[in-house]
Amino acid sequence: MERVAVIGASMTQFGQREGEWILDLLAEAGLECLDDAGVEASEVEHLYVSNMASGEFEGQTGIMNAVAHDLDAIPAYTQRVDQTSSSGGAGIYAAWQSVASGVSDMTLLIGGEKMTHRTTGEATDVIASLTHPAEYKTGVTLPSFAGLTARHYLERFDAPRESLAKVAVKNHANGVDNPNAQFRKEIDVETALESPIVADPLRLYDFCPITDGSAALMLCPESVAREYTDEYAVITGIDGATDTHVVHEREDPTVMRGVVESGEGAYEMSGRSPEDIDVAELHDMFTILEFLQMEGLGFAEQGEAWKLVEDGYTEKDGELPINTSGGLKSKGHPLGASGVAQGVEIYEQLVGEAGPRQVEADVGLACNVGGFGNCVITTIMETPQ
Amino acid sequence: MERVAVIGASMTQFGQREGEWILDLLAEAGLECLDDAGVEASEVEHLYVSNMASGEFEGQTGIMNAVAHDLDAIPAYTQRVDQTSSSGGAGIYAAWQSVASGVSDMTLLIGGEKMTHRTTGEATDVIASLTHPAEYKTGVTLPSFAGLTARHYLERFDAPRESLAKVAVKNHANGVDNPNAQFRKEIDVETALESPIVADPLRLYDFCPITDGSAALMLCPESVAREYTDEYAVITGIDGATDTHVVHEREDPTVMRGVVESGEGAYEMSGRSPEDIDVAELHDMFTILEFLQMEGLGFAEQGEAWKLVEDGYTEKDGELPINTSGGLKSKGHPLGASGVAQGVEIYEQLVGEAGPRQVEADVGLACNVGGFGNCVITTIMETPQ
Repeated sequence: MERVAVIGASMTQFGQREGEWILDLLAEAGLECLDDAGVEASEVEHLYVSNMASGEFEGQTGIMNAVAHDLDAIPAYTQRVDQTSSSGGAGIYAAWQSVASGVSDMTLLIGGEKMTHRTTGEATDVIASLTHPAEYKTGVTLPSFAGLTARHYLERFDAPRESLAKVAVKNHANGVDNPNAQFRKEIDVETALESPIVADPLRLYDFCPITDGSAALMLCPESVAREYTDEYAVITGIDGATDTHVVHEREDPTVMRGVVESGEGAYEMSGRSPEDIDVAELHDMFTILEFLQMEGLGFAEQGEAWKLVEDGYTEKDGELPINTSGGLKSKGHPLGASGVAQGVEIYEQLVGEAGPRQVEADVGLACNVGGFGNCVITTIMETPQ
Repeated sequence: MERVAVIGASMTQFGQREGEWILDLLAEAGLECLDDAGVEASEVEHLYVSNMASGEFEGQTGIMNAVAHDLDAIPAYTQRVDQTSSSGGAGIYAAWQSVASGVSDMTLLIGGEKMTHRTTGEATDVIASLTHPAEYKTGVTLPSFAGLTARHYLERFDAPRESLAKVAVKNHANGVDNPNAQFRKEIDVETALESPIVADPLRLYDFCPITDGSAALMLCPESVAREYTDEYAVITGIDGATDTHVVHEREDPTVMRGVVESGEGAYEMSGRSPEDIDVAELHDMFTILEFLQMEGLGFAEQGEAWKLVEDGYTEKDGELPINTSGGLKSKGHPLGASGVAQGVEIYEQLVGEAGPRQVEADVGLACNVGGFGNCVITTIMETPQ
């Protein structure tokens, strides 16, 4: 089977996009991606839109058909991909399948979410509705799961509270170099540790913000990619997996089975191992998640990710740069866009378009987490040699 | 590439399912389909859930992960497929792609929607939000598009008003033999013609009802299918296409481009032509749509479908039985379930499990329409010889 290539990418300004709505955001990323790939809208055969909740947030559904119309991509086949917070990663998987199965020679994936016109409470309520009804009805939200897990991790593995703050400090530092990040400001450990408590022991700076934004990727068979450009990346491994939907049923709260299983699947498909990864985008919706993904993906032993963070191993000039984009923490987390934007960062690192964020990388990995690890998609992308 | 087979199917009672919610409905269809296919939940590798609006209707999201949990299918990969009213057909396409691309050897597709706890006005409002904002804001809903199109069709092609009523009469007659249909009662032409006006010239019996329900299909590579059963069907053609999202921009209101393009794609992939089709399920959300699909799919010349209906050509004992299941008209239309249920009917006809609805068929076609033809998926299924 022919390999699936990525030949273009785009990411819009993440943040508070006042007066712009989901269809504006999707069209903006879509047009930029067409332009970046050098592809005409009429060449697009399949168009996937990653989005969790445009109906709930904005009362607008059918957005995949609307954006096909706005981009002049009709009669392209369209579909909306929802996998909650990992809708973007699921979109990469859907787009990959459309090319790999042979039914599309040019697939445009656009992820987006418009959230900031709703209050943080309203947005959190929509997001919380993805949890199991049994847990949802008790008032548990994702931030509270994060707080409970962080407390357990810190105590069990004797990790200092500062190590979580250092994830935030690192990702904020990286975000300064991302022109599209929601927050482009460095913070220090003290600021993070003194910020208001959200879900003890986690504080404001342990959480990603509520964000509007969009991002896009263009996928096609490798033979088609070569007709367009020499600068492309190849998706060599991709897999997704679920974990118990009732979070408290998990055997070990520090092991995200969806991360482990999707990672193993992606490594197996690509023939790669954790040691081969040069750069990674992890789903740092909460700082603690960066530790759990580092361990689940084999970058660190269980209970030891915090040590690597303390040692600077995951900084931009470290052994394995993680979240060079700024991560969800500083870049922002427009649900359906986030997984796509992870792919955009890995693509730009591989083709050398990451500007001041550039690191040396031939193999990159993105891990997109839905819910509290309820579903996870891991993607491995490489330079084409 | 190996062919994709269907080895199991299920459909729950369609209608008003009081006190049961979307997760109950999805689990019921999923369990029945596992049982029908003789597959263990642990064997399921990908699980797709076709659903338009569980968040809007019920405040419940993340339903694909919840049902994976309820079926004990974790760590199967999950994704929710939304293509508005054609979410079910899009689910068949997504499930097909998962198998055809080689990443899943056992894919369970469950479609479902829970709607009747909302008023007809509320449900219609959610559905209307799929239209283009420019049209939506004028108060246009799908039933009004249907009324305008029906008036145009009847006048332009000199078709008698009775011909539309005869679609309803035929599909109600077929639905009597479907134990899971919402309405199992015959009606006559007079009843249809004297029912209350909804969108002139269309009356109550030209419209499908608001419905709760679910349906499921099990897909796998043909070589895997043979390990489970000798009684399976093969998806030989499938394609989807969009039409203008602004309905009034279409050149000819009687030509649904999405139907034509997806039909051509499915015929080309399967090597079949309209003459080869033995049985078809068409998306009769409104009676007029059955005419437009018959013409768009090449079963009749433009403006002549009504003559075939008048001649009994599409009745159960006619040349080309259409909607042997009772169609959306009598079976009901739980949005995300409908396209899957069309596939269930074609599968049951092909493997000889349609009971009193059974016709002779080796090649079947299903056409699932989203919005007012904004996106359409056509699937051709065959016995495996």
